Amino acid sequence: MPSHARHQLNVLSATRLSQLLGRGEATSVAIVESCLARIEARDATLRAWAHIDRDLALAQARARDPEPRRSPLHGVPIGIKDIFDTYDMPTSHGSKAFSGHRPTADSGIVALMRRAGLVILGKCATTEFATPIPIGVGNPHDLGRSPGVSSSGSAASVADDMAPLSLGSQTGGSTILPASFCGVVGFKASLTGLDRGGMRHLRPTLDSMGLFAREVADIALLNSILSGRNAVEPPNDVAQLRIGVCHTVNWSHAEPETIVALDSAAEALRGAGARVTDAEMPPVFDDIEQSFQVIATAEGARTMASDVAAHGATMNHWLQEMRRTGSTIDAGRYEKAQLHAIECQRALGEIFARCDVIITPSACGEATRDLKGVSDSAFNRIWTLMHGPCISIPAFKGPHGMPVGIQVVGPVGSDARTIALAQCISGVLA
Amino acid sequence: MPSHARHQLNVLSATRLSQLLGRGEATSVAIVESCLARIEARDATLRAWAHIDRDLALAQARARDPEPRRSPLHGVPIGIKDIFDTYDMPTSHGSKAFSGHRPTADSGIVALMRRAGLVILGKCATTEFATPIPIGVGNPHDLGRSPGVSSSGSAASVADDMAPLSLGSQTGGSTILPASFCGVVGFKASLTGLDRGGMRHLRPTLDSMGLFAREVADIALLNSILSGRNAVEPPNDVAQLRIGVCHTVNWSHAEPETIVALDSAAEALRGAGARVTDAEMPPVFDDIEQSFQVIATAEGARTMASDVAAHGATMNHWLQEMRRTGSTIDAGRYEKAQLHAIECQRALGEIFARCDVIITPSACGEATRDLKGVSDSAFNRIWTLMHGPCISIPAFKGPHGMPVGIQVVGPVGSDARTIALAQCISGVLA
Repeated sequence: MPSHARHQLNVLSATRLSQLLGRGEATSVAIVESCLARIEARDATLRAWAHIDRDLALAQARARDPEPRRSPLHGVPIGIKDIFDTYDMPTSHGSKAFSGHRPTADSGIVALMRRAGLVILGKCATTEFATPIPIGVGNPHDLGRSPGVSSSGSAASVADDMAPLSLGSQTGGSTILPASFCGVVGFKASLTGLDRGGMRHLRPTLDSMGLFAREVADIALLNSILSGRNAVEPPNDVAQLRIGVCHTVNWSHAEPETIVALDSAAEALRGAGARVTDAEMPPVFDDIEQSFQVIATAEGARTMASDVAAHGATMNHWLQEMRRTGSTIDAGRYEKAQLHAIECQRALGEIFARCDVIITPSACGEATRDLKGVSDSAFNRIWTLMHGPCISIPAFKGPHGMPVGIQVVGPVGSDARTIALAQCISGVLA
Repeated sequence: MPSHARHQLNVLSATRLSQLLGRGEATSVAIVESCLARIEARDATLRAWAHIDRDLALAQARARDPEPRRSPLHGVPIGIKDIFDTYDMPTSHGSKAFSGHRPTADSGIVALMRRAGLVILGKCATTEFATPIPIGVGNPHDLGRSPGVSSSGSAASVADDMAPLSLGSQTGGSTILPASFCGVVGFKASLTGLDRGGMRHLRPTLDSMGLFAREVADIALLNSILSGRNAVEPPNDVAQLRIGVCHTVNWSHAEPETIVALDSAAEALRGAGARVTDAEMPPVFDDIEQSFQVIATAEGARTMASDVAAHGATMNHWLQEMRRTGSTIDAGRYEKAQLHAIECQRALGEIFARCDVIITPSACGEATRDLKGVSDSAFNRIWTLMHGPCISIPAFKGPHGMPVGIQVVGPVGSDARTIALAQCISGVLA
């Protein structure tokens, strides 16, 4: 084993670790030890993890090392957002009400990871029930800035080289926003693109699975293993791509660094030969924010009702508010909002008839200094409601040197293809 | 309270119970007692229930009676297929491996029922992990015949007046087939039509929620409450309907009684003034059975892998087989099968541009005498793969006096509308 391997395995990509493991040039134990060492050195400050059990992580690695490889990610560690059930670790949903809660079975996606031989490294800190109220996780690029919510620990741990991969989720902007703030690659799957079995829903028609890594190729590999579908080969040349640019109906939320990022990305892609065109949201999208709010509020009040009734008094103020008001949205308004979303999905389908993918901001700007307020998911909510794959590429920097992502969005169900095109685009913007 | 109420409440529809409860002419306690009495008298023979706790059911009813009504089904009892988690009752998945298993939280759909004030009456017997191997539940119309699988107890208990409503699921034919065999109304929701949160998946892109009742109006009411969407008013006159007749690519599986049922239904609807036309599956459907098998096998092997590895030796022969072979389906074949399903969904969309709903068989024929073999879901699997709402109406009888259903199928997402049109069709066929 080369000397670097023992000490710096934690900084390597999942794809690189896969190669080393496959060639017998690294062991899962060495990789997990390297990640644990980084966590032990840094997490008192960063607070990215809700639960780490050193012995349990190493026991998994020791079990994986002598086995035949179950997948290319056999032996590679991954962090799990603490809203996903694990039979061997507590799942607290970031909530005092569920502190130490021990589910009896894995969520489907966690079971699929174990089956593929991944090592479940630990549980990543999440906001309470993935609501948008921050919980004190740091941003590795500047501890005084937000890592984004709600998959805060999942994004921060990958950004800080504590784990090569992590699992998150997105109901508003919970994957793409933290990926942009922390300067990692974040992938929000199509609504049903990855197994949601066993998932404790917040909003069933919005809750999407999220994956984090430091390279797009790692997302392609992990998504392929978890979805059971082959990865798509990225095109050799960006000139084959038809790329739409979408400022969205929320463009007024864009900070200067986001304006520069989108302009620069479009310019760079055009310069590299891609066919870059306008892909603005047509007028049917004008009130889509209201429809998102109706759907989110109605579904949130329904799915959280029993837990909020039982434990509301200990919950954050966002959930307290839900306890006070319940849902004031009647079935007719909910129905109308869903029909509006479907109309927008159709209109977006027409745009995707002439664009392979859309590029659009990942976030309003670089990570905010506000460590307590609700972060603005203006460039995420609408895309979550559209149900298609989204991927944030960490291509730019803001005025304070913080990362600024660019988001690549594809049609519903085209997850593998969208990842492949994002990989190609990432190559141009890098 | 009228004298019949105390003794015969268990035979009334959910809609009728809702009226009585609303007017103070029945109590939830009296209704639940009436259902429990029927279960106590009959279930040693029928074996429709996996778990009944008399005290727990009555305690819920006693708690509901004095409360403000949470929904029109406040105080109405419902049976739950024993694959859905309940925090206060065991969930065995019909498996020795999970005997007495106590989940820590409700499945989303069960939580929504409690929130609407329904009384969780008990857990209905299911085949092991909803696989197609029968488990000895009787058919109330003839104990020597099959009640259908896998939601056997859910269908049989409603057919036998033990509960007015029950929850099932359908991955192949697990709701529509038992509904047809037992002579009740069975409704398979669109794939994501009802909350699947917390559900232990067998096949994530097929597992759909199922509801049973004795009248279509009850399904409309329950679906409205669980989906949070208004019920659609059934049209006054069937003459407004455009109804397609589909024999499917599996017509050779139809027994004489099914042939007669479909012909009679089409004739009756035409006679009542409906515009009845051919809606046969175009050639793209020719190999759809193979694609269903590829998807079902690949997903089943993935989602069951860890449980089969841990507990396979105690499981039924269908799961044993999975343990022996695992999945031999590579990602390319799976991808191709999914693309084929999408092509068929598109082709079906063209049919629905000229038909409001399709009528098609619910089952090959009346309930079989075979109590051990795998029942033939030839008229269900394809529709499950199409992801739209399906509803079986118990309109006909076979040569042995057993029920024979007719299935009404609608476009994906049009659940409330399809139920309303089925109610109108049911009125003509009754």
